[in-house]
This record gives sequence, C-alpha cells and structure tokens, in this order.
Amino acid sequence: MATPLWIYDTTLRDGTQREGLSVSIEDKLRIARQLDALGVPFIEGGWPGANPKDVQFFWQLQKEPLTNAEIVAFCSTRRPNISAATDPMLQAILAAGTRWVTIFGKSWDLHVIEGLKTSLEENLEMIRDTIAFLQLSGRKVIYDAEHWFDGYKQNKDYALKTLLTAVTAGAQWVALCDTNGGTLPHEISLIVRDVKQFLPPNTQIGIHTHNDADTAVANAIAAVLEGATMVQGTINGYGERCGNANLCSVIPNLQLKLGYDCLPEDKLTQLTTASRFISEVVNLAPNEHAAFVGRSAFAHKGGIHVSAVEKNPLTYEHIEPEKIGNNRRIVISEQAGLSNVLAKARTFGIELDKNNPAARQILRHLKELESQGYQFEAAEASFELLMREALGKRQHLFTIKGFQVHCDLSQDVDSCNSSAMATVKLAVNGQDILEAAEGNGPVAALDAALRKALVNFYPQVANFELTDYKVRILDEYSGTAANTRVLVEWRSDFQRWTTVGVSTNILNASYQAVVEGLEYGLLPPVAVSEIH
Amino acid sequence: MATPLWIYDTTLRDGTQREGLSVSIEDKLRIARQLDALGVPFIEGGWPGANPKDVQFFWQLQKEPLTNAEIVAFCSTRRPNISAATDPMLQAILAAGTRWVTIFGKSWDLHVIEGLKTSLEENLEMIRDTIAFLQLSGRKVIYDAEHWFDGYKQNKDYALKTLLTAVTAGAQWVALCDTNGGTLPHEISLIVRDVKQFLPPNTQIGIHTHNDADTAVANAIAAVLEGATMVQGTINGYGERCGNANLCSVIPNLQLKLGYDCLPEDKLTQLTTASRFISEVVNLAPNEHAAFVGRSAFAHKGGIHVSAVEKNPLTYEHIEPEKIGNNRRIVISEQAGLSNVLAKARTFGIELDKNNPAARQILRHLKELESQGYQFEAAEASFELLMREALGKRQHLFTIKGFQVHCDLSQDVDSCNSSAMATVKLAVNGQDILEAAEGNGPVAALDAALRKALVNFYPQVANFELTDYKVRILDEYSGTAANTRVLVEWRSDFQRWTTVGVSTNILNASYQAVVEGLEYGLLPPVAVSEIH
Repeated sequence: MATPLWIYDTTLRDGTQREGLSVSIEDKLRIARQLDALGVPFIEGGWPGANPKDVQFFWQLQKEPLTNAEIVAFCSTRRPNISAATDPMLQAILAAGTRWVTIFGKSWDLHVIEGLKTSLEENLEMIRDTIAFLQLSGRKVIYDAEHWFDGYKQNKDYALKTLLTAVTAGAQWVALCDTNGGTLPHEISLIVRDVKQFLPPNTQIGIHTHNDADTAVANAIAAVLEGATMVQGTINGYGERCGNANLCSVIPNLQLKLGYDCLPEDKLTQLTTASRFISEVVNLAPNEHAAFVGRSAFAHKGGIHVSAVEKNPLTYEHIEPEKIGNNRRIVISEQAGLSNVLAKARTFGIELDKNNPAARQILRHLKELESQGYQFEAAEASFELLMREALGKRQHLFTIKGFQVHCDLSQDVDSCNSSAMATVKLAVNGQDILEAAEGNGPVAALDAALRKALVNFYPQVANFELTDYKVRILDEYSGTAANTRVLVEWRSDFQRWTTVGVSTNILNASYQAVVEGLEYGLLPPVAVSEIH
Repeated sequence: MATPLWIYDTTLRDGTQREGLSVSIEDKLRIARQLDALGVPFIEGGWPGANPKDVQFFWQLQKEPLTNAEIVAFCSTRRPNISAATDPMLQAILAAGTRWVTIFGKSWDLHVIEGLKTSLEENLEMIRDTIAFLQLSGRKVIYDAEHWFDGYKQNKDYALKTLLTAVTAGAQWVALCDTNGGTLPHEISLIVRDVKQFLPPNTQIGIHTHNDADTAVANAIAAVLEGATMVQGTINGYGERCGNANLCSVIPNLQLKLGYDCLPEDKLTQLTTASRFISEVVNLAPNEHAAFVGRSAFAHKGGIHVSAVEKNPLTYEHIEPEKIGNNRRIVISEQAGLSNVLAKARTFGIELDKNNPAARQILRHLKELESQGYQFEAAEASFELLMREALGKRQHLFTIKGFQVHCDLSQDVDSCNSSAMATVKLAVNGQDILEAAEGNGPVAALDAALRKALVNFYPQVANFELTDYKVRILDEYSGTAANTRVLVEWRSDFQRWTTVGVSTNILNASYQAVVEGLEYGLLPPVAVSEIH
C-alpha cells in the first residue's frame, strides 16, 4: 500500500517570481486547469490583495471551479499591532472564496526584528491570531514557515516556538521553507527529524525548497524520508533566482522509486505533456535536458547501446519513460514515434490503428514539420487539422491566394497605433474576394481583412476572439534570420483553441496560425466524432 | 584545517556526450587551459584511440603541457581473451603520454554477460590485467566502476569483487559511477558506507554521478560525506541525457559550506567566469538560473527586500556571491522601489543619491513605462539608456525620422522566405540618410536597413549580432489589438545586452528595441564611468 503524499504546486505564485516569466489571467487559468487535470491536489493560485490580477483569477475560478484540486490563496500573517479581523489583507483572502489558505510567517528572529520591526512575542501573536481568525472563518490553513532552516540554525528555540504556535492555533500543515535555498540534504534530514520530535505527534509537516545549492529535489526527498507529508514545488522548477523544487522530478522520484502516492497512476503518464504545455503557456523554451520530462532524458546514441537498451531497457534507463509519458529516443537515426502519433490521436478522441497507412503518413508529415520547428504540444487545433488532412477529412472552407501587409510609421514613429494595412485575396465557394483592412499592427490588420472577407459566408467568425499571440525564435544565435514559431490562442462562445505557424518571416508564421485558427473555429462542433 | 577533496573534471569527455554539443580540438585545448587556470587537479581529456581528435589533443598537450592539472586519458579495460600488453587500445593510451589513466570496467554481472559476452571471471581478470599492465608501464590508475550502484543492487557480491580486484591490482582510486543516473542520495550514502567497510582501509574512493533523478549534486555530496575523496563531474553539468554532476555547484557546496578544500581559495572566485567562458566555447547559451554561477542566482526583487539584503546580505543569500565571482543583482520590476533604482544605478557604476530629484524622476518614469507593459527585468540595456536620459547623459548618436515595412506574400504564400522590405530615414550628425533593405521578415529587414544606414558612421555595428527575439502579448482578451512587448538580445565581441520595446503594433515595438539595441551597442565602453 503506497503512502499518500500531498503535492502542493506553487507554479502560479512562487513560479512566477522567475525572472522573465510573466503570465496573464488567461495563462494562469489554463495552467490551473492543466494541473487539476494532472491530479495535483493543491494549487496555490496567488496572493489576492497584493495583486489585482490575482483577485480576478480567484473570481474566475469561483465562477468555473476546478474539478478535483483545492485552489489555495496565499498571504502573509496579519500586520503587527492590529487584529486579524481588521486587516484588509485577510478580508481579501476571505473574498477569494477558497477552502484552503496558506499563510506565511517569520521563523528567524532577525527577520522579525529587522524586517517586520516588531517584537518576537508580537510575531508569535500574529501567527496565532491570523490562523485562528481564518479557522473561525471556515478556512483550512497551511502555515509556511519562511526562512525556516536558517532561522533554526540561528535561534532554534524561537524558530520551534513559531511552529508550535501555528500548530496550536490549528494549522493543518506546517511547511518548512528553505527560502534562501542554501540548505543541503543531510541538514534537512537532521532538522526535520528534530521538528518531528518537538511537535505533537501526527502534526502534518510540509517541505518547500529552493534550488540555490542545486539540491532542491534531494532536499524535498530528504524531508519526505523523515516523515514530511507535503511537498511544495513548481512545474519545471520555475521560481526566483535558481528556482523551486521541480515537481516534474520530485513526483516521479517519490512515486516510482520510493512508493509514495502523489498522483493517480493514470495521471502520472501525463506529466511530460503537462511540463511541456506549461512551458509553452509561459512562453519559455522547455529544458531539453530536464530530468524525467526533458526531450533528451531518455535519448540514446547509436550502436550496441541501442539494441541493448531495446532488449533490456532497465539496464540503461533508471525508469521506464512511458510511466511519465516521455519516450525513449534514439539519437541520429531519428526513428520511431508511431506510438507517439497514436497516443496523440487518442488524446483527441481519435482511435487510430497502427496498421492504418494514414497513421504512418501523419507520422512522416509530423516529423517533417517538427524538424522545421512546428510544435503541437500546445497547438492541438493545428494538429487536429493535420490529422484530418491525412485522413481525408479536412474541409477547406476557403483558400488564400495571397496577402500583402504594409506599415508606414513615417508620420509619427513614437506613437503609431493603427498604421498597418493588410490586403488579402481569397476564394470562398469558388468566388474570389479581395479585401483590405487596417489594424493596430500587421497581424491585427491581417486578421481583420480575413474576417471581413469571410463574414458574409460564415457569420460566426464575428464571435471568434484572438486572445493571445506568442512568438518564439527557434534557432539560437541566428536572431531574426531564424525560424520563428507563432502560437495563436482563440476563443468563441463554445470553446478555446490554439494554432501554430512557423516561418523565417514572422508575418508568414502569423498568417498560417491565423488562417488555421479561423478554419478550426469554423469546424462544426460534432466534427471530432465524425472522423472516427 | 580543510579536508582535501580531489575534483576530477570530465567536461571534455563525458560532457561532450551532451546532445547538440560538439567541440573542435582548439575548443578542447581552450577549455583544458581554463580548467587548469581554475586549479582543477584532474582533467579527463578523452579516449585516445577511440577518436582521432582525442589523439591529436593529447599530442598538443605533450608539446605545450598544462601548468598544474593532471591531464587524464580514458579507456575501457582490455578486450576479453587477449592480454593487456597486446591490446592496441592500451598502446594508444600509453602513446597519449599522460601520467594518469582512467580505466572503466563492468560492475554489473548482467552487463558482463550480455554486453561483453564474457564470463564473470574473465571480467575480473580484464580489470586486474589492465590495471597491472598500466602500473608496470609507469601510469597511475583511476578505476571507474561503471553502473556501480545498479550492479550493487543486483549482485552485491560480484560488484564488490570487481572493486576489490581493481584495488588489489593497484588502482589509486576506485570511482563509483551511477551511470544510469537514477540513484537517490540516501541510497548513495548507504552503499558508499558499505563499500568503505568492505575495501581495505585507506582505499581512495571517488564518485561519478549523473542527473537523471535531478539529484546528481546531492548524490556527489552524499558520497563525500561518507568518505569519498574524489568527485567527478562537468562544468555546467554538461553530459549525456540530463547531464553529469555540475562542478559549478559541487565545488562551492563542498568548499564554502562543508569545509573541503577543492580549489585554491583565490581560484574559487573565478568559477563564474570559467562557467561562462566554457559555455561560450561550446556555444551554448548559459543557464541564467544555474545555482551559484547563473545570472539570476543572486537576483533580488521587491523594495523592502532589497534594502534588507543590502544591509545584511546573509539573511537573503545562502553564500556571498563574490566568493565564486558572481554578483548580487537588483532586478528592476513592477515592485521597484527607490532603493531598487539606487542599487541598480550602482551596478551601472552610477552613484545616485536618494535625495537627487533625478532618482525619483527615474522611478516615476519607470512605473509609467511598466504600466504600459515595458519590462526591464531582462532588458537592462534599455534601463541604462532610460537612466542616462533622466540624468541628461544620453548621447543621441542618430535620430530615426521614419520607417516603412512592406511584405508581399502574393506570389507564394506557403514558402515566402525573403519578401519583407524595409525603408528607413534617419539623421546622423545632421545628415539625412535614406536606406532600404530586404530581410527574411520585417524585423530582419528593419535591422538590415538600419545597419546599412549606420555602418559608414559606426563601422562597429557590423559586429553586433541579434541573437534572440521574443514577443509577448500583454493584455489578455485583446489579442492582436493588445500591447505587444518585444525583447531583443544582442551580442558583440565584448558583451551581451537586451533591449525592450512596447507598442500595440509589433513592428513598432520591434523597431524601438532594435534602435535601442544599436544605440546601446555603440556606447563607448568607458562611458559608464563618464556619467558619474
């Protein structure tokens, strides 16, 4: 019987502290739903009150709640010298409407005195009062002990007192945070052991580690081996400075090697997809060398090694890649992947037989497109169109015959707002149409011209909204001469979808993604089942 | 008194197994000399005989030897059923002319039988014979026990017998290799402890770990804490699949936190430089979030936090960045307070008093730009230009009077590769210049036209390389009508820099970032001190 272990994801809060990572509310919702689908039990959503974006995020989730996960609001203990009940910050937390709240407080005496500029006693009272108030308001509380390990090393008695205060006030978990990230695994073991002995039996302990010593994953595991029952971390290890404990490593280590029960077993196979999906949403290139989920994590080079690994994989691989939804990859020969295609098809509800010649054709085409830089992890709509094409089920509702884009910023280079103009020529039902439109930029102009041309035939295009537009340069060191990948996100009243385009010319890549997005949006909703 | 610990670098052998990494002989020599200068005692150079490039590399080093480091040749045990003295592979090793040789052999019975297709006894004899032969030939030998931890778990008695054979034959070190990289730190501790008990006292043990479980650094440390005296790893953790133990993390952890003596103290401060130098030589973008040596490793956000870190760095940093040659960096972000601005100014060499009205003016301007969507976290060059502007120290080397971009994809919408054309008008030294250029896309065309216009005045623009280009839509729900942020990354022979532009029109945002990038690149290197 596997031991339960509670995974607490803080990608949406601590993860977004990573330099260069910024997310919209829409992005945060997509990530939350992905984590929910993955079976992560706790998802920290942000600090409502500190950030207006986070307030809106929690409202959205009240309207459309997650299926299984608890969404958690995050906040500090109340301010010094007021009561929790009158702290507006805590009112904002209650307004977020979550069942669970995480409160962080100071463990290190120096931070209390120099940071909060209050007394050690008042800090304890802040912890007690805040947790008690939230409990009375019907919330369950996780207490994050900030700077725990450093605080413990400096003033162990006081640090332990803060934890005991949180437990006595009714916190469901006390999570020990290595905020500065410099603690090593053997120290974690000793300190967690001491905490276990000090606190009342059955106190639930959590661990929150950062990667400044390059040991965040090992630190989390060390705490679990000493009895911690919750691990806080982020997908892909995103986080401030060197990042947080990477859940994509923590989860398979605990579940596959140490027998803990982190995710439902059928969900663990979605870990790689979730990792890549989230990296696409936050628009950061995935780390190809990441443990477990990286593209190179199970890559084997040619020769004897390859036949050996195929005969007896566990002599050359520490786990079976399929268990986390990654796959073995033979470098250079670039072979295989049919099962990949079949698996992807299955995710779209298309049951494709591996002997169906269309499956191999899709595979060939897919490989070719991927070598050009297409990426379908987060562009399901484009992949579905590709599959329909191969299966002879793609309906070409219109054909583009050409387009021109012109942008003149000669008048006022600093505040040009609507100077892009696009002209498109397309054929719909055998009829040629020429339309021009202006827009805030070339892509907006192109989108506008296309809709203008299509709206008389397909009035529903008026309801499509282009909600996000992401660009990534694919080849390092080639700058603007490199291949550019554009992801475009859409929504209508019924659905959301994403399309992809690739070209050395950003406008051409945008054009591909915009055209496919309009085409996909026009597919009748029943179409997916038809192509079985 | 610090305990000596021998660092063994295998960047040039195991590191080059990383997918996508390839090096010339010249590159290898540059890396070896850099490691030598850093004070690394052992540098594994390659497998002469398996690779003609490696043969030449060792010859070069015989002609111009390293100063302090031992260069080590690497090779397997002799082939089955011949004598070591007649194995041409070992002749090639002797020809490499090194004092030290590393021999790897099989520890796992399954690999002996299925891989080598020989008997367990013959494998022991291959280990004994090879080491004895090299000893007789005057070499010192390190024995790498391949697949050690997995072999131990499968057949402990046999695995231990292979080690004892190597020690008895005269190996100076036996290095335990976690070849598949899946072992966890607590297992390493137990197994190394057992090995220590089994082998003769004073046997020198080494540790060689891979990062497949994301615990390579912790694994190396665990072995050292059990008495291992050598750590094998690579700079930046380069290596097959998920990489090897990252020496840039192993070294400071052991030396600064655990009191081992890895590098001479005055050399440790060159660690960050060595890491970046080597990433340049192998032409891979440095990992900005790398522990210890990454650009973000000591980056701080947030106002209160920043004033606290400056007062007492160790409350927010696990080590002093200067000790490894890195530095504290104040990230400019939405939460920027005045202390952030002042701290940032200092990193540009500008001593700004907090009562200087310019400081508040910069802060105001910064907030305003950030509310429009500018982001300076990753665009320090643009921020420096902004500061210079506020201080009246910005030199306008050229003025843009207008630009037009035209893109026609009517001919062939699917494979347009160079159809963008840009026209720019600018003034340099009071002279009006009109230039036009083509490019793979509108930004490339714009960049090309600007350089064409500037190169006669500032020939150094020819050396600027536009290395990356990132686009982000800022307002959710507005799609292409939203504000667009463009980040452009540059490099020249001397430096790297990043600029930012924001506009609803992607071309206008790109234009801003490209123009600022060219302007920043043209700043004379001495300029920073001039603006005091």
